[in-house]
Amino acid sequence: MAENNITQSYENWNENVVNKTLSRFPEQKADYTLDSGMELKRLYTPLDADLDYETDLGFPGQYPFTRGVQPTMYRGRHWTMRMYAGFATAEESNKRYRYLLEQGTSGLSVAFDLPTQMGYDSDDAISMGEVGKVGVAIDSLADMEILFDGIPLDKVSTSMTINAPAAILLAMYIAVAEKQGVTPDKLNGTIQNDILKEYVARGTYIFPVKPSMRLITNIFEYCSKEVPKWNTISISGYHIREAGATAVQEVAFTLADGIAYVQAAIDAGQNVDDFAPRLSFFFNAHNNLLEEVAKYRAARRLWAKIMKERFGAKDPKSWQLKFHTQTAGCTLTAQQPDNNIVRVAIQTLAAVLGGTQSLHTNSRDEALALPTEESVMIALRTQQIVANESGVADTIDPLAGSYVVESLTNSIEVEATALIKKIDDLGGAPSAIEKGFIQQEIMDAAYKYQKDIEDGSKVIVGLNKYQVKEAPPKGLLRVDPVVEEMQKSKISELKAKRDNSAVADALARLREVCLSSGNVMPQILAAVRVYATLGEICGVMREVFGEYR
Amino acid sequence: MAENNITQSYENWNENVVNKTLSRFPEQKADYTLDSGMELKRLYTPLDADLDYETDLGFPGQYPFTRGVQPTMYRGRHWTMRMYAGFATAEESNKRYRYLLEQGTSGLSVAFDLPTQMGYDSDDAISMGEVGKVGVAIDSLADMEILFDGIPLDKVSTSMTINAPAAILLAMYIAVAEKQGVTPDKLNGTIQNDILKEYVARGTYIFPVKPSMRLITNIFEYCSKEVPKWNTISISGYHIREAGATAVQEVAFTLADGIAYVQAAIDAGQNVDDFAPRLSFFFNAHNNLLEEVAKYRAARRLWAKIMKERFGAKDPKSWQLKFHTQTAGCTLTAQQPDNNIVRVAIQTLAAVLGGTQSLHTNSRDEALALPTEESVMIALRTQQIVANESGVADTIDPLAGSYVVESLTNSIEVEATALIKKIDDLGGAPSAIEKGFIQQEIMDAAYKYQKDIEDGSKVIVGLNKYQVKEAPPKGLLRVDPVVEEMQKSKISELKAKRDNSAVADALARLREVCLSSGNVMPQILAAVRVYATLGEICGVMREVFGEYR
Repeated sequence: MAENNITQSYENWNENVVNKTLSRFPEQKADYTLDSGMELKRLYTPLDADLDYETDLGFPGQYPFTRGVQPTMYRGRHWTMRMYAGFATAEESNKRYRYLLEQGTSGLSVAFDLPTQMGYDSDDAISMGEVGKVGVAIDSLADMEILFDGIPLDKVSTSMTINAPAAILLAMYIAVAEKQGVTPDKLNGTIQNDILKEYVARGTYIFPVKPSMRLITNIFEYCSKEVPKWNTISISGYHIREAGATAVQEVAFTLADGIAYVQAAIDAGQNVDDFAPRLSFFFNAHNNLLEEVAKYRAARRLWAKIMKERFGAKDPKSWQLKFHTQTAGCTLTAQQPDNNIVRVAIQTLAAVLGGTQSLHTNSRDEALALPTEESVMIALRTQQIVANESGVADTIDPLAGSYVVESLTNSIEVEATALIKKIDDLGGAPSAIEKGFIQQEIMDAAYKYQKDIEDGSKVIVGLNKYQVKEAPPKGLLRVDPVVEEMQKSKISELKAKRDNSAVADALARLREVCLSSGNVMPQILAAVRVYATLGEICGVMREVFGEYR
Repeated sequence: MAENNITQSYENWNENVVNKTLSRFPEQKADYTLDSGMELKRLYTPLDADLDYETDLGFPGQYPFTRGVQPTMYRGRHWTMRMYAGFATAEESNKRYRYLLEQGTSGLSVAFDLPTQMGYDSDDAISMGEVGKVGVAIDSLADMEILFDGIPLDKVSTSMTINAPAAILLAMYIAVAEKQGVTPDKLNGTIQNDILKEYVARGTYIFPVKPSMRLITNIFEYCSKEVPKWNTISISGYHIREAGATAVQEVAFTLADGIAYVQAAIDAGQNVDDFAPRLSFFFNAHNNLLEEVAKYRAARRLWAKIMKERFGAKDPKSWQLKFHTQTAGCTLTAQQPDNNIVRVAIQTLAAVLGGTQSLHTNSRDEALALPTEESVMIALRTQQIVANESGVADTIDPLAGSYVVESLTNSIEVEATALIKKIDDLGGAPSAIEKGFIQQEIMDAAYKYQKDIEDGSKVIVGLNKYQVKEAPPKGLLRVDPVVEEMQKSKISELKAKRDNSAVADALARLREVCLSSGNVMPQILAAVRVYATLGEICGVMREVFGEYR
């Protein structure tokens, strides 16, 4: 098959067939540009999929990992079906986790309420009205013990969406495991621990950049020795995308953040191959199936090159981009909520065709409220159906070779590389964030996306087309306001019966470590063990480190 | 990129990486063979996608149409969203059609009740208990007028799932259009009219093979002159697949039936290019996404070759396999009906990635009852979301080039060709059906499929894994038994007020034509116009033609 022939035939087809057709039947849209600004062509042929198989794709489990990080991928084991959950009290959330495990979920994922994410106790004045709302309220080890009651921590892997106070929640998790008789080396899971994206997209930061980066590298170091199977960070593009970024920006900003963490750890004197194998990533599964699959493949190939070439990592595990995926919350509509089951099914396929290691599927009612048990079950069943019935998990990287997917994979890599170069030129991600560059890029993309919806050039079913009159939704889950009072009493009781001088000692020693250049993790763990509260521990750190802005 | 290098690297990977992995982590299943008996490999590379781009794929709208029948495909127009519907009376069904049109459906698809499909009136003793149950009861032109009341037949395309009495229902449709002032040359739509698959899979046959084939070729001839935009047959693999056939069998048996119809029309003296452009096909969208996409592509390429090479058709339109798709009813579960929304979403993607011209999506409750309005809306929204939000309709044949999809496309073509050869050796489809060959092949495949479910090697979510205790489903649609009495009274009233001598004359003349070698269509139309009932017209034909078995 000669390329010249295809070029000639393509031109003939375009001139004689397509143009004739277009003159009689114009296409539905004048512009098929993707949100990421890349052209989506009418037709892709071998001319568009410019690749050297061995260099650009290779084999699963081998550099550059374009086709996946494991040699047998889902044939060996399906991705971890990890449903993000948590609301109200530890008791309520524990019940939900047990329900999910019964339904066949294979990993837990803890959603914390806003006060916990911000490092405040439930009885802090600032917490009022937010306790237990968007996640579970955790004030001390006592809550954490209830949260994982009856769940053996050596058998389950747990992800915790916690950033600024990540060290404290990780310490609580280790302490709960100890009480179950499980040593830290047996623990599997992830903390999000990705502060840079909080500054640009999610907002639950506490400390300034420098001490935040120190906490993160402290965790890298501590875990590489004490909790070796723990993923020490989940470098997250998810929230960047939810804030309105494009697929290309999601890849570029996430990997740029990754570069900053790796550099910070190296600057702190760590060996790249000691910590890099435990870095993990977290991406969004948005609507455009082909672009999303290309995105995951491009991100894998690009990260492998960065780790090998830029940072000189030698361990193949340091080159692997492993990632969790969550379907795109921002694509769900409050209108006709059952339509969201369809969106989530398509997004699930994207994540799986893209080779994700772990997946949370959103529930149909999440644009309206916290998901009900019934809705969560459908979301989990969506993953189980894709895993067991669709066949796409039975052969590795099935879209490899597709002219359009390979073309988009190449383009996303090229575009993301150019954007990372811009960030490098601004001095790296922390500095690009301080200068507002990343925030502005996301805002511009978000504006364009909204405009496309408003002018109807982007159709969202049920939102700007195919609307119907609907009765107000029924059976939504609401968190009982009594939760806040319950948490407050629990703290009072705790403070009355714990060894308060041990707490004061532990906090004083923590202050010393924070003021030194030592690793904070052992002393946080010590404070957690004597039931110092999250707010107390964080309070010490706030005093020493200061607050961002 | 040299093939030799890939071969060498593939072998290295297999020996050094895969085998080492397998010895530590065995795969989940011992056998990844597809239902169709084809091997599904762990990994596909350029070595598996053996093709000459121009000969094997070419360009959309050009021979061999592997990449689609239209040059701009869905950019020009989305597939027809054609929801199969009909139940109870013509009044009820008309209401449902208007609802569907309001919701954005772009084509109608009429489900008839069993008596109508078998050519019996509602007041026939044999119809008892079945009137209006699985579809709408149509006894005469009077019902048909109500069915399409307020729906302009020059603006809508209508598909009718009717086989043995196809000529009669088509005549009624033409007559309703006349009353609306719409001439037959303006009519768009399809009658199923595929009797061969009724003998093997669906069961609503009336007449023996020979007169049945004559009715079909009469329709071809009549429509090529009088109703030129009408698709005269929908050669259906759907029910063959539903009966338990594999993807390969679905292609082979459907195209073998197609070959029989083309041969019959040629034998009746028609020119292939006069009728072949109006042949259409109907396939199933089953669970295995990759195999299904390959199936549609293989069927398209194979049919093009058959028409061009075997039958010497000259008109490119004769080479094009255009098809309607319905998601696989047999994959729906009565358990946890919302899970069916997920299955249908995946199957919708398969149909669209495979280039379907028209699609019916099943509703979540169809394993339990006729679908409610609410369920039908979700099914239609599924298509609208795939069309407008998933991006897969914005570039043509997006899985082209995928190593696994191209490999399966090749394999399905090869396997189906071999099976068609076997049928040819048995004397063609009608003869292979008489010998029971096709029925036996389907039974064997269905047996294996059921066995795989029973022994758990095929997981069906909610059926043989992930079961839950469920309350009995609520809000199902039930057809009121009073429908049967209503239809009976309508027939009595009709017979009291119509011109009964005109009816007797028309039926007598129809008998003469049936006994001759002339085309029956004009006289059926004449009988329909004077309100002869379906049962009366079919009765005459039964007398002359006899009944099958």
